[in-house]
Amino acid sequence: MQNTILLLLGLCLAIGITIASDTTKQHLSSNVMTQVGIVVSDIDAASRAYADVLGVEKPDIIITDSAEKTNIRYKEQSTDARAKLAFFNLENIQIELIEPIGGPSTWQEHLDTHGESVHHIAFKVGDMQQEIAMLEGKGLNMVQKGDFTGGSYAYIDGRDKLGVLLELLTSTDE
Amino acid sequence: MQNTILLLLGLCLAIGITIASDTTKQHLSSNVMTQVGIVVSDIDAASRAYADVLGVEKPDIIITDSAEKTNIRYKEQSTDARAKLAFFNLENIQIELIEPIGGPSTWQEHLDTHGESVHHIAFKVGDMQQEIAMLEGKGLNMVQKGDFTGGSYAYIDGRDKLGVLLELLTSTDE
Repeated sequence: MQNTILLLLGLCLAIGITIASDTTKQHLSSNVMTQVGIVVSDIDAASRAYADVLGVEKPDIIITDSAEKTNIRYKEQSTDARAKLAFFNLENIQIELIEPIGGPSTWQEHLDTHGESVHHIAFKVGDMQQEIAMLEGKGLNMVQKGDFTGGSYAYIDGRDKLGVLLELLTSTDE
Repeated sequence: MQNTILLLLGLCLAIGITIASDTTKQHLSSNVMTQVGIVVSDIDAASRAYADVLGVEKPDIIITDSAEKTNIRYKEQSTDARAKLAFFNLENIQIELIEPIGGPSTWQEHLDTHGESVHHIAFKVGDMQQEIAMLEGKGLNMVQKGDFTGGSYAYIDGRDKLGVLLELLTSTDE
């Protein structure tokens, strides 16, 4: 009798775990595009042009931290890649300008292959590892990841299927 | 005395007109990006991939009207270009997939030159002619325009300065 109860409890537990894993989302957890990222060869000129067209002040240009701080990995290798960044905050979305500097990166590869153009669209996600695994399960591979003050990012190469890279962003501030 | 009053009134009117014309915006009138447009070679496959990644139904694919209805002009010439379109409405922005069909267009030229990639970012504007003139004054040239049910569009080639085309959208429904 005791064995039967244990067996039933075990079954209930197994069913519970199965149901829980079935509710893991098989799509992006966010429906908000937070950013459009554009690689440029001259961030100073591009920033001036955007400021002029949008009617705003030219923002400060930021340089990403060194690899020791960002833990940047490109195609599963360490790299000295950095980037100059400029951000334009529109009412509903952010435009990020990216001028690659230093070593190999998805930014440099995109600029070399496609010229100045849109590199990624970004989504803020909760569980980064889960979302990366979900997208890799769909054949979309992570090409670069790294940290920044207050968060982490991962670029997923959706160019073959979606015509653009996806950037996943998580925040460590919340 | 009467002449002096008339002269003063005339001066006030002239100053008023000058001030009014000076307030014409020399930048985009909107700070909201309404759409990211992506050219693709197979809209059916791309729509399925987006629906899968976003966790939504695959939307209906629309074919733009014929040139007689859309009054489409590409590089100041008439063209038979049309496009298959699919729209994904996110919480804050719309993704538009575009598969060019028919004659020459900015969509076809972009696909031929750059492959599947982001074609434009869109802004809804009030006075289309004024915004086109303002952007052309900054060296950004209109490459294509046309009508659709409920509105008009114009593509401004910002690839050299901004790394992307701008689409201006106006609505005739309001």
